[in-house]
Amino acid sequence: MNYSDTLTIANKPFSSRLFVGTGKFGSSKLMKDAIIASESQLATVALKRVNPDEKSEDIHSSLLTTGVNLLPNTSGVRTAKEAIFAAQLAREALQTNWIKLEIHPDPKYLLPDPIETLLAAKELVKLGFVVMPYIHADPVLCKRLEEVGCQCVMPLGSPIGSNKGLKTIDFLEIIIEQSNVPVIVDAGIGSPSHAAKAMEMGADAVLVNTAIAVAGDPVTMAKAFKLSVESGRMAYNSQLASEQTYATASSPLTCFLEEEL
Amino acid sequence: MNYSDTLTIANKPFSSRLFVGTGKFGSSKLMKDAIIASESQLATVALKRVNPDEKSEDIHSSLLTTGVNLLPNTSGVRTAKEAIFAAQLAREALQTNWIKLEIHPDPKYLLPDPIETLLAAKELVKLGFVVMPYIHADPVLCKRLEEVGCQCVMPLGSPIGSNKGLKTIDFLEIIIEQSNVPVIVDAGIGSPSHAAKAMEMGADAVLVNTAIAVAGDPVTMAKAFKLSVESGRMAYNSQLASEQTYATASSPLTCFLEEEL
Amino acid sequence: MNYSDTLTIANKPFSSRLFVGTGKFGSSKLMKDAIIASESQLATVALKRVNPDEKSEDIHSSLLTTGVNLLPNTSGVRTAKEAIFAAQLAREALQTNWIKLEIHPDPKYLLPDPIETLLAAKELVKLGFVVMPYIHADPVLCKRLEEVGCQCVMPLGSPIGSNKGLKTIDFLEIIIEQSNVPVIVDAGIGSPSHAAKAMEMGADAVLVNTAIAVAGDPVTMAKAFKLSVESGRMAYNSQLASEQTYATASSPLTCFLEEEL
Amino acid sequence: MNYSDTLTIANKPFSSRLFVGTGKFGSSKLMKDAIIASESQLATVALKRVNPDEKSEDIHSSLLTTGVNLLPNTSGVRTAKEAIFAAQLAREALQTNWIKLEIHPDPKYLLPDPIETLLAAKELVKLGFVVMPYIHADPVLCKRLEEVGCQCVMPLGSPIGSNKGLKTIDFLEIIIEQSNVPVIVDAGIGSPSHAAKAMEMGADAVLVNTAIAVAGDPVTMAKAFKLSVESGRMAYNSQLASEQTYATASSPLTCFLEEEL
Repeated sequence: MNYSDTLTIANKPFSSRLFVGTGKFGSSKLMKDAIIASESQLATVALKRVNPDEKSEDIHSSLLTTGVNLLPNTSGVRTAKEAIFAAQLAREALQTNWIKLEIHPDPKYLLPDPIETLLAAKELVKLGFVVMPYIHADPVLCKRLEEVGCQCVMPLGSPIGSNKGLKTIDFLEIIIEQSNVPVIVDAGIGSPSHAAKAMEMGADAVLVNTAIAVAGDPVTMAKAFKLSVESGRMAYNSQLASEQTYATASSPLTCFLEEEL
Repeated sequence: MNYSDTLTIANKPFSSRLFVGTGKFGSSKLMKDAIIASESQLATVALKRVNPDEKSEDIHSSLLTTGVNLLPNTSGVRTAKEAIFAAQLAREALQTNWIKLEIHPDPKYLLPDPIETLLAAKELVKLGFVVMPYIHADPVLCKRLEEVGCQCVMPLGSPIGSNKGLKTIDFLEIIIEQSNVPVIVDAGIGSPSHAAKAMEMGADAVLVNTAIAVAGDPVTMAKAFKLSVESGRMAYNSQLASEQTYATASSPLTCFLEEEL
Repeated sequence: MNYSDTLTIANKPFSSRLFVGTGKFGSSKLMKDAIIASESQLATVALKRVNPDEKSEDIHSSLLTTGVNLLPNTSGVRTAKEAIFAAQLAREALQTNWIKLEIHPDPKYLLPDPIETLLAAKELVKLGFVVMPYIHADPVLCKRLEEVGCQCVMPLGSPIGSNKGLKTIDFLEIIIEQSNVPVIVDAGIGSPSHAAKAMEMGADAVLVNTAIAVAGDPVTMAKAFKLSVESGRMAYNSQLASEQTYATASSPLTCFLEEEL
Repeated sequence: MNYSDTLTIANKPFSSRLFVGTGKFGSSKLMKDAIIASESQLATVALKRVNPDEKSEDIHSSLLTTGVNLLPNTSGVRTAKEAIFAAQLAREALQTNWIKLEIHPDPKYLLPDPIETLLAAKELVKLGFVVMPYIHADPVLCKRLEEVGCQCVMPLGSPIGSNKGLKTIDFLEIIIEQSNVPVIVDAGIGSPSHAAKAMEMGADAVLVNTAIAVAGDPVTMAKAFKLSVESGRMAYNSQLASEQTYATASSPLTCFLEEEL
């Protein structure tokens, strides 16, 4: 059996189902090494870091040498209008029409705004963007984003940077069941077991940033996430055994002593 | 940094931290192929299957060609006395003094008996066995088994064959914190994410049987478990980020629009 | 200390923090008896059941004799436009400007639509309604509903009728922390312990329907919910002890034997 | 329907299913008031506090005026031998042959020793005691304690004083299913919702100490626990609705608009 199944978003194939972020790393070198170790093919990057007029340009160039595709995000905006403006700046700066749409007016938990996100998504699709919206794990909202032309949906597992894992698991299940576009679990994934679980459930990919960037050893942690995402996908494809209420011996030797004695 | 850390039990080194069971597979061939795919170095086997007088001898020989070490278990016994007898039979049949001690009088959930297990462990250690006891996730019992000379402890995650995962997680944490011998989580692990979680917590190894044997594709599932165990161990070694109550942006671009506009 | 704290919504005081639904009961009599046993002061009712032109009018009258306030809901609508129309019909039929706003286009999980709900809420507030919106446990959406003038927010615990309890607990916590209007946990509460937990967290009230209506004995179950809601509120008011990692003996008699012997 | 079902232990009837502890209260008066508010009929007390030669005798007398039955515990002992000695001292001091058997050699988590507990239980039953053993939530151990004549079993929810709730829930379910003597969930219950959940599952009673004693307002918290235990028992008796995967509208008004418009 061949499980090298490919993820496709907007006609672009990905052999890796681990997407990564570029924030919070201790140094540019660490970030670059971790991304290489992750074997990810898509890395989100905040607009500021790729601003051609700033020193952070180095990061941009540095990332490009790894061969990873850059996915600009609109982090920091609070309204649809700001998001659309940011997306246009990003398209110009990075020469890509892909955009990770993040609109979070809330400064404490950075939770996304469903209304502004749908508004912005609709407009950005019209403007020719490949829109990847970061949103609450709200199944109805996911369907609406799909209907306006988003190329995937990116529901959260738990608040950004919290490392709490899949606190929305009951709703992620419904989203995965109902979606016609790829479902990428974004935000809150704090350990490889969280990532594996998302993939076992049938998520198409996961995005991890904080858990890699602030680990004791980010490079090894990146590799750990790579393995866990592959593992979870394999498990999904090879059909997990179901939960059982009663035990069944894996060593069904219930009577050997009677026979022997 | 080198994370190829080796697990040692009774002076025997293991590079793989995934132990496997041999029950419930659809065929001997499937079992053999799955064990090879798992890259496990230790496979439990019920005494009956290695009885020299039965046809099941084939299974024994078949397993030996894979290079995996065989760990006979006492599955099916209900008392310390029966367990000691079974261990002696196993030693003779398999030419090994390693024994996985399982005493479960309960036919419905196959849960282990703490009293008989401690009694048998004490005696088997005196008889020169390397004793690996399967027990409830009871931290006090684990210490007592360590004190009588067990070479590891094997607390359960959930009932055998239930695939429910780490339902004893709060007590596994205490066991791992307090143990001076390797802690191997046994029973109940139903998916790679469960195995990864156990390893992230600092378990020294996991034993998986049902989840591989009854998967849709046991060979690929075995490989998935291999990757998840490696992933979890790497994550443990490279220090997981802690959980946070409040969010911290991984893309700290909170003000770019003000600057730009 | 006096904990008879009163909940106020739109200047109307409630001494009971348990709201109930009227659907799914085996008979009108059972519904009426259960509502009386619950001591609830607010019962939701679907528009159809109070339609003056139908026989179901009996239910309406029957309910009124219990003294409970009726809260019409817009269940069955799929858009803001339909919801506004339904609310107006309900106002006329029931002579109340209170409306529970439910817009769920999804027939399988009956999950609410965030966009249409906000649209309808805004309009209904303008039309003079006391708007109580049923929504996903989305903290940003809750703030927006509060901003447009909703008198409370009603985030879900889990899908309607699922009895799964507080699957959104991490987000309910944030909603309760941030809200300036009462937070009423609605949908999914399947047992008194779920209701007690919601109240312990600081929810202002809970709405329960299915778990009472389809219980073996709905009248006793209604009473059980009444007690659990009171219990949870008392616990919230009297400050729960925090979780501890290590044990502390409640019977600190660590040395008595040394002294005695 | 009459749900005033009585719990019977060793032929003694209890109308309250909430047992309480007497440790950790800020003052004797607070303890006494909380016990009165709890309406409990059984309070555990450490031997030292009832020592006739000490000033703490006051506590003993004070408790007796409330009408609560005192249940001496062996807290502080580390072996069966010490426990038996402590039980005999308690019998003499308190003129009761009831004993709560606690043997916890572990000073950090105060977890009970299964081996010493079974040994002591066996002996104490022979000596005419009504033995109520505090133990890990180990179903096989519970059966063995029942077999040697214990009048109930008292499995833990989580470590004493941790307030973490029912972390052993999967095993409590099995214990409740299999037990022929009352099952009293002891240790770890940190809030009324935990107590309600234990009762909903079919536990016969719960024992609460820390969560009441260290609450902001112990007297009100005691009352909250009283209500939650009653609520949980009622729910158990009136048959909880089962969990559902898909939603079912409680307000099945799916088509009213079509009809109306």
